[in-house]
Amino acid sequence: MAHNDLSVAARIIGKGNVLAADCPSRQILQHVTSRWGTLVLIALADGTLRFAQVRRHVGGISERMLAQTLQVLESDHLVRRVAHDVVPPHVDYSLTPLGREVATRVLNLAGWIEDNLPALLTTEA
Amino acid sequence: MAHNDLSVAARIIGKGNVLAADCPSRQILQHVTSRWGTLVLIALADGTLRFAQVRRHVGGISERMLAQTLQVLESDHLVRRVAHDVVPPHVDYSLTPLGREVATRVLNLAGWIEDNLPALLTTEA
Repeated sequence: MAHNDLSVAARIIGKGNVLAADCPSRQILQHVTSRWGTLVLIALADGTLRFAQVRRHVGGISERMLAQTLQVLESDHLVRRVAHDVVPPHVDYSLTPLGREVATRVLNLAGWIEDNLPALLTTEA
Repeated sequence: MAHNDLSVAARIIGKGNVLAADCPSRQILQHVTSRWGTLVLIALADGTLRFAQVRRHVGGISERMLAQTLQVLESDHLVRRVAHDVVPPHVDYSLTPLGREVATRVLNLAGWIEDNLPALLTTEA
């Protein structure tokens, strides 16, 4: 089977296409690249964190936006929420195996921007 | 010089940190990962396109949002706009060398989402 046949087959069996307006992959891309989604994935890439810890890592995020962002990433199977049955109760957030794979790519993108900041901010044409 | 010393040095000489609320790298990350910024970078990764061609590639984008997105990416030195002095006049858009580097990382992220769409959309816990 040639490479092109494989691509066509992959598309038929459910591969996404973010450039198509109605493809669900675009929605997931938007969750992952949302203002806070990106930063929460980066914060959790270091390991399991409690809610307040994620909030401290991600400068400027409100409690409400953090709760909403974690919920969306959980529904995409990228973040796992574990409520521990202890007194006082506490809740942990961590990346799922899928979440770790996507976080690697988000870190790669964000790291490149951090590394190339002077060139990106230059005022020369 | 140990790896950690290098990281510290890089940070001192202008390396960004997207987790800091006031770091300009976060703003660039937001341009690159904006709803349309991501898709315009992906469309231009294939080569130089005119305005109407970019618009055809990126399903669902309005003329106004495309113009605004191209302008922001141009100001970040990621997209180059060339107005040809011909009759009728036409304008080309292409990625700069920096734009190609960032587009590679955006494609890597979007491609992973496209490839893993079934797992991301599954209704199982």
